[in-house]
Amino acid sequence: MRIGELARRTGVPVPTIKYYSREGLLPPGERTSPNQVAYDDSHVRRLKLIRAMLEVGGLSVAAARDVLAEVDSPTRSVHGMLGVAQSAVTRAAVERGTDEDRERAEAEVRELVTRHGWTAKPQNPGWQSLVQIVLTYRDLDRGDLLTLLDKYASAAGELALAELGALADVPSADGKVEGVVLGTVLGDAAMSALRRIAQEDASGRARG
Amino acid sequence: MRIGELARRTGVPVPTIKYYSREGLLPPGERTSPNQVAYDDSHVRRLKLIRAMLEVGGLSVAAARDVLAEVDSPTRSVHGMLGVAQSAVTRAAVERGTDEDRERAEAEVRELVTRHGWTAKPQNPGWQSLVQIVLTYRDLDRGDLLTLLDKYASAAGELALAELGALADVPSADGKVEGVVLGTVLGDAAMSALRRIAQEDASGRARG
Repeated sequence: MRIGELARRTGVPVPTIKYYSREGLLPPGERTSPNQVAYDDSHVRRLKLIRAMLEVGGLSVAAARDVLAEVDSPTRSVHGMLGVAQSAVTRAAVERGTDEDRERAEAEVRELVTRHGWTAKPQNPGWQSLVQIVLTYRDLDRGDLLTLLDKYASAAGELALAELGALADVPSADGKVEGVVLGTVLGDAAMSALRRIAQEDASGRARG
Repeated sequence: MRIGELARRTGVPVPTIKYYSREGLLPPGERTSPNQVAYDDSHVRRLKLIRAMLEVGGLSVAAARDVLAEVDSPTRSVHGMLGVAQSAVTRAAVERGTDEDRERAEAEVRELVTRHGWTAKPQNPGWQSLVQIVLTYRDLDRGDLLTLLDKYASAAGELALAELGALADVPSADGKVEGVVLGTVLGDAAMSALRRIAQEDASGRARG
């Protein structure tokens, strides 16, 4: 199909398609004459995936490029894809607090991870985010909110197993890799959205 | 204390403190002479809260201003605070899909909410995010990932009750309101961080 048809089928305007192409998010189409390039269904799907990452997941173009490079890598794996996708969706943690405060927060996170029997390491993109959150709660003397982290952790553990189970049922390697990307990029957004609905309900009931 | 001492105690540079003041995030100090303004412990705490919202929660200055206006409102309530904080942390959903696709996704979200016995309405900031996520999964033919939403919803429901319970134990009204702000702004980040750690663990074990 020509670029106009690609735009029509995906709802992505032609100039935006050209921009994604230049930025390396969309593989080039096949040049069929000096003035014409042909696209196929793989380009339709890729454009949908790009929109999901940018518009729904809120990723930057650079972060989406990193994720897609791994999707297209001949040496990709589900576990490696997870690491790349996690890094892409994680905001860099701002260094704060004294060395002593940081060490204390690091120790709290290490203890929490151990308590839940997890083998993850401080290099995990979530780890430093969590240290920063613990530091913030401690800085504001809100140890009461820290006690909730164990409940979040138990829920996260159960959900991770469910997510992995869903992935195991996907027959194709492409489908598994895309599932990791979508689960990581949209999974956070889905969980946050559902938390807002559940919180409104719980708060409304408590108010009576 | 003077502004230099306020900067030292909070780690926020003087020009940044002045900027937050101009933007209406930090209440003015008390003018004690034509050239001097005195700040107190309430300014220290407010600055810590501002940093938590901007640096850890990733809120814009405008969104943080909305949240703090409600914190300082004489007519504030815990339930109202929750609504304002939820709106502040929610990215606006981009309209997409045909009317038919949108109606179908709206219906799926309504059914999910009903299934979990929730009373929340489509005005909830999470609702439209969820419609967009359902649309995206459908657009990509990933109904398999949609089945995970019920598991996320069950976890979100349990966590909302735990969060409300933690809030009930906070004695002061100020503490409750600040707890809602922190729980909303940092709660998403904490859950996402823990999901990354749990996912790495589950994926690593599956790989063997």
